[in-house]
Amino acid sequence: MADTENMGRKRRTPRSERGQREVIATPAYIKRVVPFYELLGEEQLVCLEEQADWLIQEVGIAFKDDPVALDIWRKAGADVGADDKVRLPKGMARELCKTIPREFQQVARNPEKSVRIGGNNQVFAAVYGPPFVRDLDKGRRYGSIEDFEKLLKLAHNLPNIHHNGFVICEPCDIPVSTRHLDMLYLHMTTSDKPHLGAIVEKERAEDSVAMARIVHGSDTFDNNCVIMGNLNTNSPLLVDKVVAEAIRTYNGAGQGVLVSPFILQGAMGPVSTAASISQALAEAMICGAFSQLVKPGSPFIMGNFLSSMSLKSGAPTFGMPEPVISNYVIGQLARRLGLPLRCGGSLTASKVSDGQAMAESVDSMHSTMLAGANFILQSAGWLEGGLCTGYEKLLMDADRLGSYQKILGQGLDTSDEAMARDAYGEVEPGGHFLGSGHTMRNYETAFYEAPLSDSESCEQWEENGSTTAEQRANLRMKQMLKDYEAPAIDEGTKEELQAYVAKRKEELPEAWY
Amino acid sequence: MADTENMGRKRRTPRSERGQREVIATPAYIKRVVPFYELLGEEQLVCLEEQADWLIQEVGIAFKDDPVALDIWRKAGADVGADDKVRLPKGMARELCKTIPREFQQVARNPEKSVRIGGNNQVFAAVYGPPFVRDLDKGRRYGSIEDFEKLLKLAHNLPNIHHNGFVICEPCDIPVSTRHLDMLYLHMTTSDKPHLGAIVEKERAEDSVAMARIVHGSDTFDNNCVIMGNLNTNSPLLVDKVVAEAIRTYNGAGQGVLVSPFILQGAMGPVSTAASISQALAEAMICGAFSQLVKPGSPFIMGNFLSSMSLKSGAPTFGMPEPVISNYVIGQLARRLGLPLRCGGSLTASKVSDGQAMAESVDSMHSTMLAGANFILQSAGWLEGGLCTGYEKLLMDADRLGSYQKILGQGLDTSDEAMARDAYGEVEPGGHFLGSGHTMRNYETAFYEAPLSDSESCEQWEENGSTTAEQRANLRMKQMLKDYEAPAIDEGTKEELQAYVAKRKEELPEAWY
Repeated sequence: MADTENMGRKRRTPRSERGQREVIATPAYIKRVVPFYELLGEEQLVCLEEQADWLIQEVGIAFKDDPVALDIWRKAGADVGADDKVRLPKGMARELCKTIPREFQQVARNPEKSVRIGGNNQVFAAVYGPPFVRDLDKGRRYGSIEDFEKLLKLAHNLPNIHHNGFVICEPCDIPVSTRHLDMLYLHMTTSDKPHLGAIVEKERAEDSVAMARIVHGSDTFDNNCVIMGNLNTNSPLLVDKVVAEAIRTYNGAGQGVLVSPFILQGAMGPVSTAASISQALAEAMICGAFSQLVKPGSPFIMGNFLSSMSLKSGAPTFGMPEPVISNYVIGQLARRLGLPLRCGGSLTASKVSDGQAMAESVDSMHSTMLAGANFILQSAGWLEGGLCTGYEKLLMDADRLGSYQKILGQGLDTSDEAMARDAYGEVEPGGHFLGSGHTMRNYETAFYEAPLSDSESCEQWEENGSTTAEQRANLRMKQMLKDYEAPAIDEGTKEELQAYVAKRKEELPEAWY
Repeated sequence: MADTENMGRKRRTPRSERGQREVIATPAYIKRVVPFYELLGEEQLVCLEEQADWLIQEVGIAFKDDPVALDIWRKAGADVGADDKVRLPKGMARELCKTIPREFQQVARNPEKSVRIGGNNQVFAAVYGPPFVRDLDKGRRYGSIEDFEKLLKLAHNLPNIHHNGFVICEPCDIPVSTRHLDMLYLHMTTSDKPHLGAIVEKERAEDSVAMARIVHGSDTFDNNCVIMGNLNTNSPLLVDKVVAEAIRTYNGAGQGVLVSPFILQGAMGPVSTAASISQALAEAMICGAFSQLVKPGSPFIMGNFLSSMSLKSGAPTFGMPEPVISNYVIGQLARRLGLPLRCGGSLTASKVSDGQAMAESVDSMHSTMLAGANFILQSAGWLEGGLCTGYEKLLMDADRLGSYQKILGQGLDTSDEAMARDAYGEVEPGGHFLGSGHTMRNYETAFYEAPLSDSESCEQWEENGSTTAEQRANLRMKQMLKDYEAPAIDEGTKEELQAYVAKRKEELPEAWY
């Protein structure tokens, strides 16, 4: 190790001379340069597609409790049964999906942080939805508005998280009826990265759209996607009012939606990965078709969220072979359909940020990455099957995202400089390249440095306190919160947002459910 | 969750009726049914191959301290310089490699546990080499012969570990000069899975070959590969006496070798992933060529072990984007050359089995899996950059291996039964498939169950003691050691082995270095 210790010293010199090591600009999103992993061949893919078409044509998918949606379907020529099941003639869903943009931009408050979704682009978004939070200091508890803000500050400062999602944790200590207003306001002021809007009630979706119009101005709003709603179908084969109304609100305003069937195989879908994938395709495809009836050309992301089940408890499991395969296959199906895809994420059933959490998250995320998912919600911070946001987990996942960003965005450099032929003139057999000209020219940008990985010797690691990755994440998280600086925002815009929130809070009754 | 709880109960019924749930026979190795991930296109692959050819033709690779090896090269028509550098005419290395079997069997003492190496087959082998061991009870200490035996017992009982490797830990409490005899004897009696033999000194390799002949009998030995030696070149571009002699001993006896350049980019190779991959290819290729000069048709596995470096300390890092890419690329290069490949493993720089350990190991291993590595040494148990075998880590890694085994060996079932069309006749929109006929027919074999993953609710997990995966692995490890039963062995063979070991111990001086 003497040689590498020596190299360590050589390395540090240029940094201390120049003060802080130069920060290489991190991209706002990933432009993928490496191929996709194609797991299935043509015959199997066609088999899955035919099943999805059969579900849409023969079995039918119900649209419940939204008469407007059923009217839209009837006018479009769909067969709407007395049981509210919608059946489409052969090819109609695919035909309607053709106006969905294969690729589109979501404009961020800071234009440098705008993301492109679809095609060869990949966007990592934070955890979405957990009612609980956990950290090493205070353990597990219901999320609060203070947690929400802290987590947003962390996501804002983590360079490998491109998009803040929306419900980074559920702020359970403020009223449900007006919660979305506080969450939107915090997203819009704490960070300048892109984010999603509220759903559940039509009014909340409308508030999201209205506040996005304030932030971006009508000109930008009318000509761009600036906000999206994140929706789950009520699998199996049911699209409820929440989904239909949110599609009508977001897509109706020219904004975007992502619709993900959440299928626990054996419960919301058959106990078969293939059948559940086909069902997810059918459900997403009919929602995509519906979005285009509402407004042709409006952005739509096809989602997929498939989990397996523990035989011990019947509970959902994550990072297992079945969802790994499903990630790869749904990637192929989305490309064939020409739709932007959301799938996967850093998913786990573990309660804490231990070896199980990271093993499951990484198998899940490695497949998500190679599968080519375009919008990856839950890419950092997930614990406990989505019931809990982990402060430390957020940072630990973000570390891996940096690695995926490099794999996808850079691939393998085989330029003349990368082939380093000159170095072989300087080094004898059994010698070392530490001091070679090529090494000196390239070492500072050669490797991804994962901030939380400890690669020191055991002796050094013990001297530093024998910490686990989770403990190091805890320390780093606190430092990041200390160092946080709010991104600049126009004061007029801020006041207008405050006025909107205040007005709506007066109009809405305080409700806690 | 009521539905899934209900399912849990339904699930358990058939098991309690029939007593123990049926154990599905685990395969002795993996016959891969899914495609490889092809990261690079033709042009970049050719670029890497040309560089390897240039290194062999122009730069040369030194064979040091083994005059016999240089004689073999001279007779074959190589250019051997005064500096012992061997340079081969264009195409000669590739031509010689053509007699290497693309696929071969390593026969195990128990024929049902024999493995096929090469082609579409993948074999997971245990950790190899660490001088230290670690568990939660006693922490980190030098490995002992007691540890060696315990770890072997665990590897023997873990169904997803197909091959026991050799130095599962270094038994540092017994003399170096005769240590290999005790290790071989324990491999041959504690388990009936295949394993490797000793290297370092020519005599130790010869003892390995001789003892394998006793175990398998001359007939099986002479007509099969029953033992192999695991070798590292002395990168850059140096093949030392240990390697050349072991090739002459193992391949000379018709047995196999694996030769892996170990390249820490920036030290033993240029600080460039592409250049280091090419160098690894050149070093492995010239050793492959040499093995065929020794004995045409003898088994040879091309190895690759590439690591990146921490800018903080100059220490090796694992599971990072550079070695992940290298796994994928070397897989492509090995297939083009038609050689069985060893690469990757469950690698990490972490000192303990925490989130870092599993994140790095899983990114490393997921890429190893998809890359198509045929023989995966270090697939379970690695900690601390290979300096330490983790008892808990062995079990935690083996859990993931079960997942990879299912992905690779089963792919996605799209049979009529898997498409589950009948289930849609039983389930209404928004309903559930828990009790459907299809679910009842298939749930017991639908999912991989990772023994150490806790997927229970947080409340249940707390009731069970709020354990981490590492703690659960510790408990399971102790139970496995309690339950261990030695596989049957012919008493005559056992006595013959004991007599050989006793005789050799008399002949060899006791030495501790």
